[in-house]
Amino acid sequence: MKLLITYDVETITKEGQKRLRLVAKACKDFGQRVQNSVFECDVDESQFVLLKHKLENIIDKESDSIRIYHLKNNSQQSTIIIGKITSYNVESLLMI
Amino acid sequence: MKLLITYDVETITKEGQKRLRLVAKACKDFGQRVQNSVFECDVDESQFVLLKHKLENIIDKESDSIRIYHLKNNSQQSTIIIGKITSYNVESLLMI
Repeated sequence: MKLLITYDVETITKEGQKRLRLVAKACKDFGQRVQNSVFECDVDESQFVLLKHKLENIIDKESDSIRIYHLKNNSQQSTIIIGKITSYNVESLLMI
Repeated sequence: MKLLITYDVETITKEGQKRLRLVAKACKDFGQRVQNSVFECDVDESQFVLLKHKLENIIDKESDSIRIYHLKNNSQQSTIIIGKITSYNVESLLMI
């Protein structure tokens, strides 16, 4: 199944910045970063359950937000990109 | 058609911050903000063409990035939200 994962993680505190890195790391294990806080993932059912579980255990549910969208199978063809096509190195410090 | 619009706009310069506000404003005219740089829009074909045209004319294609995803019609039921459900006032200064 094709997923789009978008997230807002509080980055004022050190803990928040750490959660941000962990969220990116967890998503990176299952897919491709396409924007600063947006990942495209193609996973099976068990990977989906695992990824969701990981994300639920990383974030602070009071201050952070993750949205997981199920994309159409042909999303690659129908997705429109305007401007820069971005590639990221999740290990490097994130430019906020 | 249901769209998900995600964007990364450079915010180091004043011009970039202005573009960020204009992108949010353009998306707000057609939908609902669900995260800092993520909007859900439900538009017809002509609104889609208009919105796309507006966004293309706002951003700096070298430094900014907009992605427009076509969502499944039942995306409301299938979208998973972990953590905070966020509502925004696009007029107020964006918390970066």
